Amino acid sequence: MIRVPKVSPYSAETIAVGSELLVGGRSDSNSLFITERLAEIGIEVRFKTIVGDQESAIASVLSTACRRAGIVIMTGGLGPTVDDCTREAVAAVTGCRLVRRKEALIGMKARLAQWGRTPNRAQLRQALVPTGATVLPNPVGSAPGFTVKWRGAQVMVLPGVPSEMRPMMEQSVKPLILARLERLKGTRPQPVTRTVFHTWGLPEAEVDARLKGLITKATPVALGLLASPTGVLVSLTTQSDRSVKAVVLSRLAEKVRTRLREWLYAEGQETMEEVVGQLLVEQQRTIAVAESCTGGLISHRLTQVPGASAYVDRGAICYSNRAKTDMLGVPVSLIEQYGAVSRQVAQAMATGMRERAGTSVGLSTTGIAGPGGATETKPVGLVYVGLDGGVGEPITKEFRFHGDRSVIKQRSSQAALDLLRRWLLERRQV
Amino acid sequence: MIRVPKVSPYSAETIAVGSELLVGGRSDSNSLFITERLAEIGIEVRFKTIVGDQESAIASVLSTACRRAGIVIMTGGLGPTVDDCTREAVAAVTGCRLVRRKEALIGMKARLAQWGRTPNRAQLRQALVPTGATVLPNPVGSAPGFTVKWRGAQVMVLPGVPSEMRPMMEQSVKPLILARLERLKGTRPQPVTRTVFHTWGLPEAEVDARLKGLITKATPVALGLLASPTGVLVSLTTQSDRSVKAVVLSRLAEKVRTRLREWLYAEGQETMEEVVGQLLVEQQRTIAVAESCTGGLISHRLTQVPGASAYVDRGAICYSNRAKTDMLGVPVSLIEQYGAVSRQVAQAMATGMRERAGTSVGLSTTGIAGPGGATETKPVGLVYVGLDGGVGEPITKEFRFHGDRSVIKQRSSQAALDLLRRWLLERRQV
Repeated sequence: MIRVPKVSPYSAETIAVGSELLVGGRSDSNSLFITERLAEIGIEVRFKTIVGDQESAIASVLSTACRRAGIVIMTGGLGPTVDDCTREAVAAVTGCRLVRRKEALIGMKARLAQWGRTPNRAQLRQALVPTGATVLPNPVGSAPGFTVKWRGAQVMVLPGVPSEMRPMMEQSVKPLILARLERLKGTRPQPVTRTVFHTWGLPEAEVDARLKGLITKATPVALGLLASPTGVLVSLTTQSDRSVKAVVLSRLAEKVRTRLREWLYAEGQETMEEVVGQLLVEQQRTIAVAESCTGGLISHRLTQVPGASAYVDRGAICYSNRAKTDMLGVPVSLIEQYGAVSRQVAQAMATGMRERAGTSVGLSTTGIAGPGGATETKPVGLVYVGLDGGVGEPITKEFRFHGDRSVIKQRSSQAALDLLRRWLLERRQV
Repeated sequence: MIRVPKVSPYSAETIAVGSELLVGGRSDSNSLFITERLAEIGIEVRFKTIVGDQESAIASVLSTACRRAGIVIMTGGLGPTVDDCTREAVAAVTGCRLVRRKEALIGMKARLAQWGRTPNRAQLRQALVPTGATVLPNPVGSAPGFTVKWRGAQVMVLPGVPSEMRPMMEQSVKPLILARLERLKGTRPQPVTRTVFHTWGLPEAEVDARLKGLITKATPVALGLLASPTGVLVSLTTQSDRSVKAVVLSRLAEKVRTRLREWLYAEGQETMEEVVGQLLVEQQRTIAVAESCTGGLISHRLTQVPGASAYVDRGAICYSNRAKTDMLGVPVSLIEQYGAVSRQVAQAMATGMRERAGTSVGLSTTGIAGPGGATETKPVGLVYVGLDGGVGEPITKEFRFHGDRSVIKQRSSQAALDLLRRWLLERRQV
């Protein structure tokens, strides 16, 4: 029943070695870098494995990887301490002895000499490499990497420190893989291309329904959907021939844009705050933000963008009712009549902010982020967003979000920035 | 040569399913949560695997996992869309048919009914479960999980959405594993205990030097260090006998505290903003924050803590010079004389904020987050933090941070909150 995928010279697996990666709350960022670099030369990473610093466990993972991938890239476990045992595990799997290699030693000594040091006993271990392996020089640190062939797979072993691993990927690993591909008969693999679309405001099922029938079995493109608190992400991934790809992808991307319409707020690496920032720059508008339930998150996001000082004038975080009155001039009577979490107060906050700051736009949020603060009529997750652009009536919108305090803050900030984005887009069309 | 570890009923593997996790730049945060919950009941996660949405690849990974782990926890690929094929892969590996299960359907219908909906055709697929599997109810979303035994391993399949996976881990997975351990003869494994200490203000090498000699070869405890933009994390991990553990760990923890002194700001899951919040509550003080370079991040962090409205009164994000004058009363002449990024302006911002808000404390930041904005005398990363507590002289501190815009904002917010923490601690001792 089990259809285990065969080794393909064009598919890869990454193995991250390190007990900290299993328990430490640290994510394996190396593997994402490796995946991107390999995609550029048409190599798809199909599996990622994380394993602790036990020789037998590393050996088990490596031997599995060699069965299912043509290229195996291991990071970590090459340091000088006793718990670093990647080289021993590779030697065990491949049945090779570890020998001290002159070229490894020379590179290490040269590196340490730059820092005015000579290798100590622990560091000398780092010059050990399995017999038959090729040493991969480390242009930054003292531990060299190495590469060895095993059962049709090319195993590349690199240090886990990102600043050492990254140049080694570029300078050693990529050229070696390209040379390997040259030697292989048959067509060279095409670079993997991935186009990403970011949406806000539609449930995942609705995005799915809108994209129905877009991809047929014959289309050499994979469609992916991913829901998160800040919206649903849509991806198109392909590895087909370059000429086909350009045509097919641009046609599909156009269809995605048409079907997702104004719910599509960004593409690729772009963020909501960058999109909003570009629109503000383009229209030479400035903004001030008055936040209650989002507590500063909208201002924080807007100011993550380099150059934001050109359009972000100020922000007011008005957690207390008195702050809403002091900083924005929201009438005490309005808060008493409707409550701080109300459409009326959201509007008064946006207008007060815009007028006091003298900016083109005032944007506001007021809501109940929870877990406390709910009343019978106003549940946790009830959020109002207000926008005053100085022309026409101010806009307010009501939302009812689910999730914990942090998620409600995130979704509220996304909703407010999206309201601003749509408002700015309408102004552009005028 | 290869010593493949045998299946242990006490070891686990996590499998995260989703092509997005391979390429999308999104880290697999689920596996860290699962690792922590399993450690509490003595189960060690020894392998983590990430695999894309291909049925054959998922099947391959699952069958490997069942060979090397006693407990396999899969997340993701249970959604309603076509690329969700985890249940098909499990059925293929175990040789079971997929059948629609009444208990799965009832739970799903009940959930959807709460939202005023009925299951559509795609969602009905989510009630499919391999024959012989036990349904694991999903108290939050529509897709149930399930568990099935295969070759001595207990395979648990959960949705990938963290808010659904987490309660299912607590309510279904942990009790099931505990029951399984009860049935197994022999000694129950000891819970893995991990104590974490958070420091700010010391370089990693300095933390390392301070902890030197703390752990000897005979100590059944592992010491870990991990540097990040918000400080260096220290961990003590042990799985020894309960009585030994309590004594050894508490003695070691006390030594860590003594050696790290006031640089230690939190332990365990606690965050800097929670520590500061508790001190404010305890001392019945209120706070207002005036932010320039941090752009709202400090207020955002303070208001991430439930109940923050008891002590956070307001915040002012003063990106423009005019905002500093308008909102905080910083004299135009002061900005002209010393520049907006200066010790003098940081102090005026803190004092102005405190006086205008009428809070116990005013906290401020002004700096150059980059990449633009540097001058010959003021480089990117130059940051001033100010604190006015109404008694005694206001405090200001100068920092020179490295990193990109986002890192400089993070470090600045951490430095400001730490200054506040130390100030509050001094008040407590008086």
